[in-house]
Amino acid sequence: MRQAYQIQLNDLGDHGARMCKVASDALRDATKSLLTADLSLAEQVIATDVVLDEMRASAETAALELLALQAPVAGDLRAVVSALWIVADLQRMGALAIHVAKAARRRHPAQVIPMEIRPIIERMGRVGVHLADQAAIVLRDRDTTLARTLETEDDLMDDLHQEMFAALLSPSWTHGVAPAVDISLLGRFFERFADHAVAVARRVIFLVTGENVGGDTTPAFSPPER
Amino acid sequence: MRQAYQIQLNDLGDHGARMCKVASDALRDATKSLLTADLSLAEQVIATDVVLDEMRASAETAALELLALQAPVAGDLRAVVSALWIVADLQRMGALAIHVAKAARRRHPAQVIPMEIRPIIERMGRVGVHLADQAAIVLRDRDTTLARTLETEDDLMDDLHQEMFAALLSPSWTHGVAPAVDISLLGRFFERFADHAVAVARRVIFLVTGENVGGDTTPAFSPPER
Repeated sequence: MRQAYQIQLNDLGDHGARMCKVASDALRDATKSLLTADLSLAEQVIATDVVLDEMRASAETAALELLALQAPVAGDLRAVVSALWIVADLQRMGALAIHVAKAARRRHPAQVIPMEIRPIIERMGRVGVHLADQAAIVLRDRDTTLARTLETEDDLMDDLHQEMFAALLSPSWTHGVAPAVDISLLGRFFERFADHAVAVARRVIFLVTGENVGGDTTPAFSPPER
Repeated sequence: MRQAYQIQLNDLGDHGARMCKVASDALRDATKSLLTADLSLAEQVIATDVVLDEMRASAETAALELLALQAPVAGDLRAVVSALWIVADLQRMGALAIHVAKAARRRHPAQVIPMEIRPIIERMGRVGVHLADQAAIVLRDRDTTLARTLETEDDLMDDLHQEMFAALLSPSWTHGVAPAVDISLLGRFFERFADHAVAVARRVIFLVTGENVGGDTTPAFSPPER
Protein backbone atom coordinates (compact mmCIF):
# COMPACT_ATOMS: atom_id res chain seq x y z
CA MET A 1 0.00 0.00 0.00
CA ARG A 2 2.71 2.41 1.09
CA GLN A 3 4.72 1.52 -2.01
CA ALA A 4 1.80 2.13 -4.40
CA TYR A 5 1.38 5.48 -2.71
CA GLN A 6 5.02 6.48 -3.32
CA ILE A 7 4.60 5.47 -6.95
CA GLN A 8 1.51 7.67 -7.24
CA LEU A 9 3.41 10.57 -5.67
CA ASN A 10 6.30 10.16 -8.11
CA ASP A 11 3.87 9.87 -11.02
CA LEU A 12 2.45 13.23 -10.03
CA GLY A 13 5.92 14.80 -10.22
CA ASP A 14 6.68 13.20 -13.60
CA HIS A 15 3.29 14.33 -14.87
CA GLY A 16 4.25 17.92 -14.01
CA ALA A 17 7.56 17.63 -15.87
CA ARG A 18 5.77 16.25 -18.96
CA MET A 19 3.17 18.99 -18.87
CA CYS A 20 5.95 21.56 -18.60
CA LYS A 21 7.51 20.11 -21.75
CA VAL A 22 4.17 20.46 -23.56
CA ALA A 23 4.04 24.14 -22.55
CA SER A 24 7.66 24.65 -23.61
CA ASP A 25 7.09 23.06 -27.04
CA ALA A 26 3.92 25.12 -27.44
CA LEU A 27 5.81 28.37 -26.87
CA ARG A 28 8.64 27.33 -29.23
CA ASP A 29 6.17 26.48 -32.01
CA ALA A 30 3.96 29.50 -31.33
CA THR A 31 6.95 31.84 -31.62
CA LYS A 32 8.00 30.13 -34.85
CA SER A 33 4.46 30.33 -36.28
CA LEU A 34 4.41 34.04 -35.47
CA LEU A 35 7.77 34.77 -37.09
CA THR A 36 7.16 32.64 -40.19
CA ALA A 37 3.38 33.25 -40.54
CA ASP A 38 2.96 29.45 -40.46
CA LEU A 39 -0.78 28.87 -40.11
CA SER A 40 -0.70 25.10 -39.73
CA LEU A 41 1.93 25.28 -36.98
CA ALA A 42 -0.20 27.91 -35.22
CA GLU A 43 -3.26 25.62 -35.47
CA GLN A 44 -1.21 22.78 -34.03
CA VAL A 45 -0.28 24.88 -30.99
CA ILE A 46 -3.88 26.02 -30.52
CA ALA A 47 -4.97 22.37 -30.46
CA THR A 48 -2.78 21.60 -27.42
CA ASP A 49 -5.42 23.40 -25.35
CA VAL A 50 -7.36 20.15 -24.99
CA VAL A 51 -4.24 18.14 -24.11
CA LEU A 52 -3.26 20.59 -21.38
CA ASP A 53 -6.74 20.69 -19.93
CA GLU A 54 -6.85 16.88 -19.77
CA MET A 55 -3.41 16.82 -18.14
CA ARG A 56 -4.51 19.39 -15.57
CA ALA A 57 -7.76 17.55 -14.81
CA SER A 58 -6.07 14.16 -14.42
CA ALA A 59 -3.35 15.59 -12.16
CA GLU A 60 -6.00 17.29 -10.03
CA THR A 61 -8.00 14.07 -9.75
CA ALA A 62 -4.88 12.11 -8.78
CA ALA A 63 -3.89 14.73 -6.19
CA LEU A 64 -7.36 14.83 -4.65
CA GLU A 65 -7.43 11.04 -4.47
CA LEU A 66 -4.07 10.98 -2.73
CA LEU A 67 -5.28 13.55 -0.22
CA ALA A 68 -8.54 11.71 0.45
CA LEU A 69 -7.19 8.14 0.60
CA GLN A 70 -3.68 8.59 1.99
CA ALA A 71 -3.94 11.71 4.14
CA PRO A 72 -0.29 12.56 3.51
CA VAL A 73 1.60 14.76 5.98
CA ALA A 74 4.80 16.84 5.99
CA GLY A 75 6.82 16.58 2.77
CA ASP A 76 4.31 14.27 1.07
CA LEU A 77 1.49 16.69 1.79
CA ARG A 78 3.54 19.55 0.37
CA ALA A 79 4.23 17.48 -2.74
CA VAL A 80 0.53 16.96 -3.39
CA VAL A 81 -0.49 20.54 -2.67
CA SER A 82 2.40 21.84 -4.79
CA ALA A 83 1.21 19.66 -7.66
CA LEU A 84 -2.21 21.33 -7.48
CA TRP A 85 -0.61 24.77 -7.74
CA ILE A 86 1.93 23.75 -10.34
CA VAL A 87 -0.52 22.27 -12.84
CA ALA A 88 -2.47 25.54 -12.71
CA ASP A 89 0.71 27.46 -13.62
CA LEU A 90 1.57 24.98 -16.37
CA GLN A 91 -1.89 25.19 -17.90
CA ARG A 92 -1.60 28.96 -17.86
CA MET A 93 1.80 28.78 -19.60
CA GLY A 94 0.17 26.67 -22.30
CA ALA A 95 -2.70 29.17 -22.58
CA LEU A 96 -0.23 32.03 -23.05
CA ALA A 97 1.64 30.13 -25.78
CA ILE A 98 -1.74 29.58 -27.43
CA HIS A 99 -2.44 33.34 -27.29
CA VAL A 100 0.79 33.87 -29.25
CA ALA A 101 -0.28 31.26 -31.81
CA LYS A 102 -3.70 32.90 -32.10
CA ALA A 103 -2.05 36.22 -32.91
CA ALA A 104 -0.21 34.46 -35.76
CA ARG A 105 -3.47 32.90 -36.99
CA ARG A 106 -5.45 36.13 -36.70
CA ARG A 107 -3.04 38.10 -38.90
CA HIS A 108 -2.22 35.28 -41.33
CA PRO A 109 -1.00 35.55 -44.10
CA ALA A 110 0.31 38.94 -42.97
CA GLN A 111 3.49 39.15 -40.90
CA VAL A 112 2.49 40.59 -37.50
CA ILE A 113 5.98 41.56 -36.50
CA PRO A 114 7.90 44.41 -38.17
CA MET A 115 11.53 43.68 -38.97
CA GLU A 116 13.08 45.65 -36.09
CA ILE A 117 10.98 43.75 -33.51
CA ARG A 118 11.66 40.26 -34.88
CA PRO A 119 14.99 39.69 -33.08
CA ILE A 120 13.39 40.75 -29.79
CA ILE A 121 10.45 38.36 -30.21
CA GLU A 122 12.83 35.61 -31.22
CA ARG A 123 14.86 36.09 -28.06
CA MET A 124 11.75 36.37 -25.88
CA GLY A 125 10.61 33.04 -27.28
CA ARG A 126 14.01 31.50 -26.65
CA VAL A 127 14.20 32.75 -23.06
CA GLY A 128 10.64 31.55 -22.37
CA VAL A 129 11.32 28.09 -23.78
CA HIS A 130 14.58 27.82 -21.84
CA LEU A 131 12.85 28.84 -18.59
CA ALA A 132 10.17 26.21 -19.15
CA ASP A 133 12.80 23.56 -19.94
CA GLN A 134 14.67 24.47 -16.76
CA ALA A 135 11.40 24.32 -14.80
CA ALA A 136 10.81 20.80 -16.19
CA ILE A 137 14.22 19.72 -14.85
CA VAL A 138 13.48 21.40 -11.50
CA LEU A 139 10.22 19.45 -11.37
CA ARG A 140 11.74 16.12 -12.35
CA ASP A 141 14.80 16.34 -10.06
CA ARG A 142 13.33 18.55 -7.31
CA ASP A 143 16.43 20.65 -7.84
CA THR A 144 16.15 23.70 -5.59
CA THR A 145 19.56 25.08 -6.58
CA LEU A 146 18.48 25.22 -10.21
CA ALA A 147 15.07 26.53 -9.09
CA ARG A 148 16.69 29.58 -7.50
CA THR A 149 18.47 30.50 -10.76
CA LEU A 150 15.21 30.90 -12.68
CA GLU A 151 14.47 34.28 -11.16
CA THR A 152 17.74 35.66 -12.55
CA GLU A 153 17.00 34.30 -15.99
CA ASP A 154 13.57 35.90 -15.82
CA ASP A 155 15.39 39.26 -15.59
CA LEU A 156 16.51 38.66 -19.19
CA MET A 157 12.85 38.55 -20.19
CA ASP A 158 12.23 41.87 -18.44
CA ASP A 159 15.21 43.41 -20.28
CA LEU A 160 13.81 42.19 -23.61
CA HIS A 161 10.41 43.54 -22.69
CA GLN A 162 11.96 46.94 -22.00
CA GLU A 163 13.76 46.82 -25.35
CA MET A 164 10.44 46.07 -27.01
CA PHE A 165 8.73 49.09 -25.43
CA ALA A 166 11.69 51.26 -26.40
CA ALA A 167 11.29 50.20 -30.04
CA LEU A 168 7.53 50.80 -30.02
CA LEU A 169 7.90 54.26 -28.49
CA SER A 170 10.92 55.31 -30.54
CA PRO A 171 10.53 58.26 -32.94
CA SER A 172 11.69 55.88 -35.69
CA TRP A 173 8.62 53.63 -35.22
CA THR A 174 6.79 53.94 -38.53
CA HIS A 175 4.23 51.13 -38.28
CA GLY A 176 1.51 53.04 -36.49
CA VAL A 177 -0.85 52.02 -33.72
CA ALA A 178 -2.26 48.64 -34.81
CA PRO A 179 0.99 46.60 -34.78
CA ALA A 180 2.03 48.41 -31.58
CA VAL A 181 -1.16 47.16 -29.89
CA ASP A 182 -0.53 43.59 -31.10
CA ILE A 183 3.09 43.68 -29.98
CA SER A 184 2.31 45.16 -26.55
CA LEU A 185 -0.02 42.25 -25.88
CA LEU A 186 2.41 39.70 -27.30
CA GLY A 187 5.15 41.06 -25.04
CA ARG A 188 2.84 40.63 -22.09
CA PHE A 189 2.14 37.00 -23.04
CA PHE A 190 5.86 36.15 -23.18
CA GLU A 191 6.50 37.95 -19.91
CA ARG A 192 3.67 36.15 -18.12
CA PHE A 193 4.81 32.80 -19.50
CA ALA A 194 8.21 33.42 -17.90
CA ASP A 195 6.60 34.53 -14.62
CA HIS A 196 4.68 31.27 -14.39
CA ALA A 197 7.84 29.24 -15.03
CA VAL A 198 9.43 31.09 -12.10
CA ALA A 199 6.30 30.39 -10.02
CA VAL A 200 6.66 26.66 -10.76
CA ALA A 201 10.26 26.77 -9.54
CA ARG A 202 9.13 28.57 -6.37
CA ARG A 203 6.54 25.90 -5.70
CA VAL A 204 9.23 23.23 -5.97
CA ILE A 205 11.31 25.15 -3.40
CA PHE A 206 8.25 25.05 -1.12
CA LEU A 207 7.76 21.36 -1.84
CA VAL A 208 11.32 20.48 -0.84
CA THR A 209 11.99 22.96 1.98
CA GLY A 210 8.58 24.07 3.25
CA GLU A 211 9.63 27.67 2.60
CA ASN A 212 6.53 29.40 1.23
CA VAL A 213 7.57 32.42 -0.83
CA GLY A 214 4.29 32.51 -2.72
CA GLY A 215 3.67 31.65 -6.31
CA ASP A 216 3.10 34.14 -9.02
CA THR A 217 4.02 37.35 -7.26
CA THR A 218 6.54 38.70 -9.74
CA PRO A 219 5.87 42.40 -10.35
CA ALA A 220 4.68 43.23 -13.86
CA PHE A 221 7.16 44.88 -16.11
CA SER A 222 5.77 48.20 -17.30
CA PRO A 223 6.30 50.57 -20.19
CA PRO A 224 9.03 53.10 -19.41
CA GLU A 225 8.53 56.71 -18.38
CA ARG A 226 7.92 59.02 -21.26
CA MET B 1 -12.39 18.76 18.25
CA ARG B 2 -14.80 18.24 15.39
CA GLN B 3 -16.46 21.54 16.21
CA ALA B 4 -13.19 23.49 16.23
CA TYR B 5 -12.47 21.96 12.85
CA GLN B 6 -15.79 23.18 11.39
CA ILE B 7 -15.03 26.65 12.74
CA GLN B 8 -11.61 26.59 11.04
CA LEU B 9 -13.24 25.52 7.77
CA ASN B 10 -15.78 28.34 7.96
CA ASP B 11 -13.04 30.82 8.84
CA LEU B 12 -11.27 29.83 5.66
CA GLY B 13 -14.40 30.65 3.61
CA ASP B 14 -14.88 34.01 5.36
CA HIS B 15 -11.22 34.79 4.84
CA GLY B 16 -11.73 34.31 1.10
CA ALA B 17 -14.73 36.63 1.06
CA ARG B 18 -12.76 39.32 2.92
CA MET B 19 -9.81 38.98 0.60
CA CYS B 20 -12.16 39.31 -2.37
CA LYS B 21 -13.46 42.57 -0.91
CA VAL B 22 -9.87 43.86 -0.62
CA ALA B 23 -9.34 43.06 -4.31
CA SER B 24 -12.64 44.69 -5.26
CA ASP B 25 -11.84 47.90 -3.33
CA ALA B 26 -8.37 47.92 -4.86
CA LEU B 27 -9.79 47.85 -8.39
CA ARG B 28 -12.36 50.53 -7.58
CA ASP B 29 -9.69 52.85 -6.16
CA ALA B 30 -7.16 52.02 -8.88
CA THR B 31 -9.68 52.92 -11.59
CA LYS B 32 -10.51 56.15 -9.81
CA SER B 33 -6.83 57.02 -9.37
CA LEU B 34 -6.31 56.44 -13.09
CA LEU B 35 -9.25 58.60 -14.15
CA THR B 36 -8.54 61.44 -11.72
CA ALA B 37 -4.71 61.23 -11.75
CA ASP B 38 -4.89 60.87 -7.95
CA LEU B 39 -1.37 59.90 -6.86
CA SER B 40 -2.09 59.34 -3.18
CA LEU B 41 -5.01 57.04 -3.97
CA ALA B 42 -2.78 55.13 -6.40
CA GLU B 43 -0.11 54.77 -3.69
CA GLN B 44 -2.75 53.50 -1.29
CA VAL B 45 -3.78 50.77 -3.75
CA ILE B 46 -0.15 49.81 -4.39
CA ALA B 47 0.35 49.38 -0.64
CA THR B 48 -2.37 46.66 -0.44
CA ASP B 49 0.19 44.33 -2.00
CA VAL B 50 1.56 43.47 1.46
CA VAL B 51 -1.93 42.97 2.91
CA LEU B 52 -2.91 40.58 0.13
CA ASP B 53 0.29 38.61 0.43
CA GLU B 54 -0.21 38.21 4.18
CA MET B 55 -3.82 37.14 3.61
CA ARG B 56 -2.70 34.58 1.03
CA ALA B 57 0.08 33.22 3.26
CA SER B 58 -2.16 32.90 6.33
CA ALA B 59 -4.92 31.17 4.33
CA GLU B 60 -2.36 28.76 2.86
CA THR B 61 -0.95 27.99 6.30
CA ALA B 62 -4.44 27.39 7.71
CA ALA B 63 -5.38 25.15 4.76
CA LEU B 64 -2.18 23.10 5.04
CA GLU B 65 -2.74 22.68 8.79
CA LEU B 66 -6.28 21.49 8.21
CA LEU B 67 -5.05 18.97 5.64
CA ALA B 68 -2.24 17.70 7.89
CA LEU B 69 -4.14 17.54 11.19
CA GLN B 70 -7.71 16.75 10.15
CA ALA B 71 -7.27 14.77 6.92
CA PRO B 72 -10.61 16.00 5.61
CA VAL B 73 -12.48 13.99 2.97
CA ALA B 74 -15.29 14.60 0.45
CA GLY B 75 -16.85 18.07 0.69
CA ASP B 76 -14.50 19.23 3.46
CA LEU B 77 -11.48 18.22 1.41
CA ARG B 78 -12.84 20.11 -1.59
CA ALA B 79 -13.39 23.16 0.62
CA VAL B 80 -9.76 23.19 1.72
CA VAL B 81 -8.32 22.53 -1.74
CA SER B 82 -10.62 25.16 -3.26
CA ALA B 83 -9.40 27.67 -0.70
CA LEU B 84 -5.82 27.05 -1.88
CA TRP B 85 -6.83 27.77 -5.47
CA ILE B 86 -9.08 30.68 -4.62
CA VAL B 87 -6.56 32.67 -2.60
CA ALA B 88 -4.16 32.44 -5.56
CA ASP B 89 -6.85 33.94 -7.84
CA LEU B 90 -7.68 36.64 -5.30
CA GLN B 91 -4.06 37.62 -4.87
CA ARG B 92 -3.75 37.86 -8.64
CA MET B 93 -6.85 40.08 -8.80
CA GLY B 94 -5.20 42.37 -6.28
CA ALA B 95 -1.97 42.36 -8.30
CA LEU B 96 -3.86 43.36 -11.45
CA ALA B 97 -5.60 46.23 -9.62
CA ILE B 98 -2.13 47.31 -8.46
CA HIS B 99 -0.90 47.28 -12.07
CA VAL B 100 -3.70 49.74 -12.89
CA ALA B 101 -2.68 51.95 -9.97
CA LYS B 102 0.95 51.80 -11.08
CA ALA B 103 -0.02 53.05 -14.52
CA ALA B 104 -1.69 56.03 -12.80
CA ARG B 105 1.42 56.66 -10.70
CA ARG B 106 3.82 56.25 -13.63
CA ARG B 107 2.10 58.92 -15.72
CA HIS B 108 1.21 61.28 -12.87
CA PRO B 109 0.47 64.20 -13.10
CA ALA B 110 -0.47 63.49 -16.73
CA GLN B 111 -3.83 61.97 -17.55
CA VAL B 112 -3.13 58.55 -19.09
CA ILE B 113 -6.53 58.15 -20.65
CA PRO B 114 -7.74 60.25 -23.60
CA MET B 115 -11.28 61.57 -23.33
CA GLU B 116 -12.89 59.06 -25.72
CA ILE B 117 -11.52 56.09 -23.76
CA ARG B 118 -12.52 57.36 -20.31
CA PRO B 119 -16.12 56.06 -20.35
CA ILE B 120 -14.87 52.60 -21.44
CA ILE B 121 -12.30 52.44 -18.64
CA GLU B 122 -14.92 53.66 -16.19
CA ARG B 123 -17.29 50.86 -17.20
CA MET B 124 -14.50 48.25 -17.21
CA GLY B 125 -13.70 49.26 -13.65
CA ARG B 126 -17.36 49.07 -12.66
CA VAL B 127 -17.87 45.63 -14.23
CA GLY B 128 -14.67 44.32 -12.60
CA VAL B 129 -15.65 45.64 -9.16
CA HIS B 130 -19.16 44.21 -9.52
CA LEU B 131 -17.79 40.79 -10.54
CA ALA B 132 -15.49 40.78 -7.51
CA ASP B 133 -18.35 41.79 -5.22
CA GLN B 134 -20.50 39.01 -6.64
CA ALA B 135 -17.61 36.56 -6.19
CA ALA B 136 -17.38 37.63 -2.52
CA ILE B 137 -21.08 36.78 -2.05
CA VAL B 138 -20.56 33.46 -3.87
CA LEU B 139 -17.70 32.69 -1.48
CA ARG B 140 -19.57 33.72 1.66
CA ASP B 141 -22.85 31.95 0.82
CA ARG B 142 -21.45 29.12 -1.37
CA ASP B 143 -24.11 30.25 -3.84
CA THR B 144 -23.68 28.17 -7.01
CA THR B 145 -26.65 29.77 -8.78
CA LEU B 146 -25.06 33.18 -8.47
CA ALA B 147 -21.68 31.63 -9.35
CA ARG B 148 -23.03 30.50 -12.73
CA THR B 149 -24.15 34.05 -13.62
CA LEU B 150 -20.62 35.45 -13.38
CA GLU B 151 -19.59 34.03 -16.73
CA THR B 152 -22.37 35.99 -18.45
CA GLU B 153 -21.37 39.19 -16.73
CA ASP B 154 -17.79 38.58 -17.82
CA ASP B 155 -19.09 38.84 -21.42
CA LEU B 156 -19.76 42.53 -20.69
CA MET B 157 -16.06 42.94 -19.98
CA ASP B 158 -15.20 41.31 -23.30
CA ASP B 159 -17.61 43.68 -25.10
CA LEU B 160 -15.94 46.66 -23.43
CA HIS B 161 -12.54 45.31 -24.35
CA GLN B 162 -13.64 45.08 -27.98
CA GLU B 163 -14.95 48.66 -27.84
CA MET B 164 -11.58 49.73 -26.50
CA PHE B 165 -9.68 48.09 -29.37
CA ALA B 166 -12.10 49.63 -31.86
CA ALA B 167 -11.34 53.10 -30.46
CA LEU B 168 -7.57 52.53 -30.50
CA LEU B 169 -7.62 51.28 -34.08
CA SER B 170 -10.12 53.83 -35.39
CA PRO B 171 -8.91 56.31 -38.05
CA SER B 172 -10.04 59.05 -35.66
CA TRP B 173 -7.47 58.00 -33.04
CA THR B 174 -5.15 61.00 -32.81
CA HIS B 175 -3.11 60.19 -29.70
CA GLY B 176 -0.40 58.13 -31.32
CA VAL B 177 1.35 54.97 -30.20
CA ALA B 178 2.36 55.63 -26.58
CA PRO B 179 -1.13 55.98 -25.04
CA ALA B 180 -2.33 53.09 -27.23
CA VAL B 181 0.36 50.85 -25.67
CA ASP B 182 -0.64 51.94 -22.15
CA ILE B 183 -4.32 51.40 -22.85
CA SER B 184 -3.83 47.97 -24.46
CA LEU B 185 -2.10 46.79 -21.32
CA LEU B 186 -4.67 48.41 -19.04
CA GLY B 187 -7.46 46.69 -20.96
CA ARG B 188 -5.69 43.39 -20.45
CA PHE B 189 -5.43 44.00 -16.68
CA PHE B 190 -9.17 44.67 -16.37
CA GLU B 191 -10.00 41.65 -18.50
CA ARG B 192 -7.76 39.33 -16.47
CA PHE B 193 -9.18 40.69 -13.22
CA ALA B 194 -12.64 39.66 -14.44
CA ASP B 195 -11.36 36.24 -15.58
CA HIS B 196 -10.02 35.53 -12.11
CA ALA B 197 -13.33 36.53 -10.50
CA VAL B 198 -15.02 33.99 -12.79
CA ALA B 199 -12.37 31.42 -11.83
CA VAL B 200 -13.19 31.98 -8.14
CA ALA B 201 -16.87 31.35 -8.86
CA ARG B 202 -15.95 28.14 -10.73
CA ARG B 203 -13.92 26.93 -7.78
CA VAL B 204 -16.93 27.46 -5.51
CA ILE B 205 -19.04 25.35 -7.91
CA PHE B 206 -16.40 22.63 -7.55
CA LEU B 207 -16.36 23.04 -3.78
CA VAL B 208 -20.12 22.56 -3.51
CA THR B 209 -20.80 20.03 -6.29
CA GLY B 210 -17.49 18.30 -7.00
CA GLU B 211 -17.88 19.32 -10.65
CA ASN B 212 -14.37 20.30 -11.79
CA VAL B 213 -14.63 22.68 -14.74
CA GLY B 214 -11.15 24.05 -14.21
CA GLY B 215 -10.16 27.44 -12.99
CA ASP B 216 -8.82 30.14 -15.14
CA THR B 217 -9.48 28.75 -18.60
CA THR B 218 -11.37 31.68 -20.08
CA PRO B 219 -10.06 32.37 -23.60
CA ALA B 220 -8.29 35.70 -23.97
CA PHE B 221 -10.11 38.39 -25.78
CA SER B 222 -8.07 39.57 -28.74
CA PRO B 223 -7.80 42.62 -30.91
CA PRO B 224 -10.20 42.43 -33.88
CA GLU B 225 -9.27 41.54 -37.42
CA ARG B 226 -7.92 44.43 -39.38
